[in-house]
Amino acid sequence: MDVVKEINSRAKRLNVQIMDYLDGQNDSKLMKAVRHYPEAGGKRLRPMLAQVVAEAVGKAGDRALPFACSLEIIHNFTLVHDDVMDNDPVRRGRPAVHVLFDVPTAIIAGDALFARAFEIIADTEVPPQNIKRLIRSTAHTVWLIAEGQQEDMDFENIPAEELAMEDYMSMINKKTAVLFECAAEGGALIAGGTEDQVAAMREYAHLLGMGFQVWDDVLNLTSDEKTMGKPVGNDIRNGKRTLIVLHALHTLDKDDERRRTLLQALGNEKATREEIADAIAALHASGSIDHARALAQDYSRRAKELLDCLPPSEEKEFLAGLMDFAVGRDA
Amino acid sequence: MDVVKEINSRAKRLNVQIMDYLDGQNDSKLMKAVRHYPEAGGKRLRPMLAQVVAEAVGKAGDRALPFACSLEIIHNFTLVHDDVMDNDPVRRGRPAVHVLFDVPTAIIAGDALFARAFEIIADTEVPPQNIKRLIRSTAHTVWLIAEGQQEDMDFENIPAEELAMEDYMSMINKKTAVLFECAAEGGALIAGGTEDQVAAMREYAHLLGMGFQVWDDVLNLTSDEKTMGKPVGNDIRNGKRTLIVLHALHTLDKDDERRRTLLQALGNEKATREEIADAIAALHASGSIDHARALAQDYSRRAKELLDCLPPSEEKEFLAGLMDFAVGRDA
Repeated sequence: MDVVKEINSRAKRLNVQIMDYLDGQNDSKLMKAVRHYPEAGGKRLRPMLAQVVAEAVGKAGDRALPFACSLEIIHNFTLVHDDVMDNDPVRRGRPAVHVLFDVPTAIIAGDALFARAFEIIADTEVPPQNIKRLIRSTAHTVWLIAEGQQEDMDFENIPAEELAMEDYMSMINKKTAVLFECAAEGGALIAGGTEDQVAAMREYAHLLGMGFQVWDDVLNLTSDEKTMGKPVGNDIRNGKRTLIVLHALHTLDKDDERRRTLLQALGNEKATREEIADAIAALHASGSIDHARALAQDYSRRAKELLDCLPPSEEKEFLAGLMDFAVGRDA
Repeated sequence: MDVVKEINSRAKRLNVQIMDYLDGQNDSKLMKAVRHYPEAGGKRLRPMLAQVVAEAVGKAGDRALPFACSLEIIHNFTLVHDDVMDNDPVRRGRPAVHVLFDVPTAIIAGDALFARAFEIIADTEVPPQNIKRLIRSTAHTVWLIAEGQQEDMDFENIPAEELAMEDYMSMINKKTAVLFECAAEGGALIAGGTEDQVAAMREYAHLLGMGFQVWDDVLNLTSDEKTMGKPVGNDIRNGKRTLIVLHALHTLDKDDERRRTLLQALGNEKATREEIADAIAALHASGSIDHARALAQDYSRRAKELLDCLPPSEEKEFLAGLMDFAVGRDA
């Protein structure tokens, strides 16, 4: 199976449905702001996961469609607000909502997307005993995402050396993995899966989300500029405290020269290519890149084992392929 | 029945439950920001309405409690975001969330309150055929509130003379009445009311919400400083385009001296007491204050007729009393 091709073709079909849900009767500023991010595209992994899991668990892919779209809309709502909070002017190569319009409009557009998402969820055909759980789980997920964003901002005031790896992983879990978990759990609930299947799908998605993130960090340091479309080691220049960086800071001795090299390059926008290369060398020397790679591969292995609870299907294969894509892709 | 006393005693009981739902396990900045407005109190009219309607329709006041609290939480979420957007530094005599903390924290706190509200709704015991409708109606209400806030901000760029009364009423409806409607409709749905009862309660709440707003505008121009606790005609000084002001601008001739007097005082922070008094006199002369008063009284009459669909109960009496309080109170 060509996973990338499958992702693209599924995303294309989802796009139509997502934009349908955001097609207002009017062209007001608010509606334009609401549609700005969703229409810019994206991999649509969250709704895809909900649909594929629903299909794999109980051939309920079609029934899961409204719920699936609501997750993409929630994802976009968080992006709109995050960009305001982080003062990020660009998203997917286009001006951020608060730049194209203004901050108040971006705040309202995010709120409106959030509201629309819950309107849509209520359209999902789901076994009656599962409807409240689906709503509760989705709402709680947004609560966790809010906590994660708050932690992310709070962490900026803590020196990298003092940041604990488990705190970082907990933040990353809330900021990215929980929405994947919600997607897979929801898909299984809509399909009327067993408790074991619901739990397994949720855990699979957790590992998928975390794997994606950790692998992303590995790629940023080990791929090449041509493949990635952005400079190698960009994360270091931007001062991103990834698991890899935190691992190195906890591993290398206080007076290790390489530790100093790393800290000097971290967040230094003017760092030269050579200084970035030296910092990456330090991350290799400390075993931090290998550590992250091994962790991601362990996630991948465990996630694929969890798929054993599913009957054979193309969707089951796709879920395995998706995990291989998350951990193993080269760009 | 002493309506004010009844409101206060019901609000007191609701407060305990509302704060219970916002009692985090931790004292993080986010949790403090989340609790800041709800703990400052308020009349709790929205949850009260949901509970009282549920009790009056089908003795389901207790069952309606989670839904009721979720509406107060939604109301507070909109206040947190509105204050950021309008740059209002004070709320209920305390610093606004974005002032006490910062804008990013206020944005997240609002999002978190919104999320918590939907977590709580899912705890409501409601007839199975009504649960999706309850969720959809509540989510759609938030969408409308977002539209209303956007319109409110857009209207600021339109000169008062060019603002149509129906556009203003539509905006006010979205900003305030729809959440009352949602409360009453939800209460009736939770109680398993008939379609007629659901529709009547929704319309009652619409008239209650609109009546509250219009009467507020009347009071601001006709009460006295001692009773209100703020200067008479403050709305004029603040440039508020109330129904009364818009009515006068549509009624008075373009070359009427009183029209000019009104426009000169409107939004003029330095307007003297005398200039404000002259503007109020103009609003009397144009019949605009009488028009608003008559409109509010008509709302009240129609709302009380709608209560005929309810069996006799103390709660039914309270709903009538609430309408008399909304339209007729003197402060």
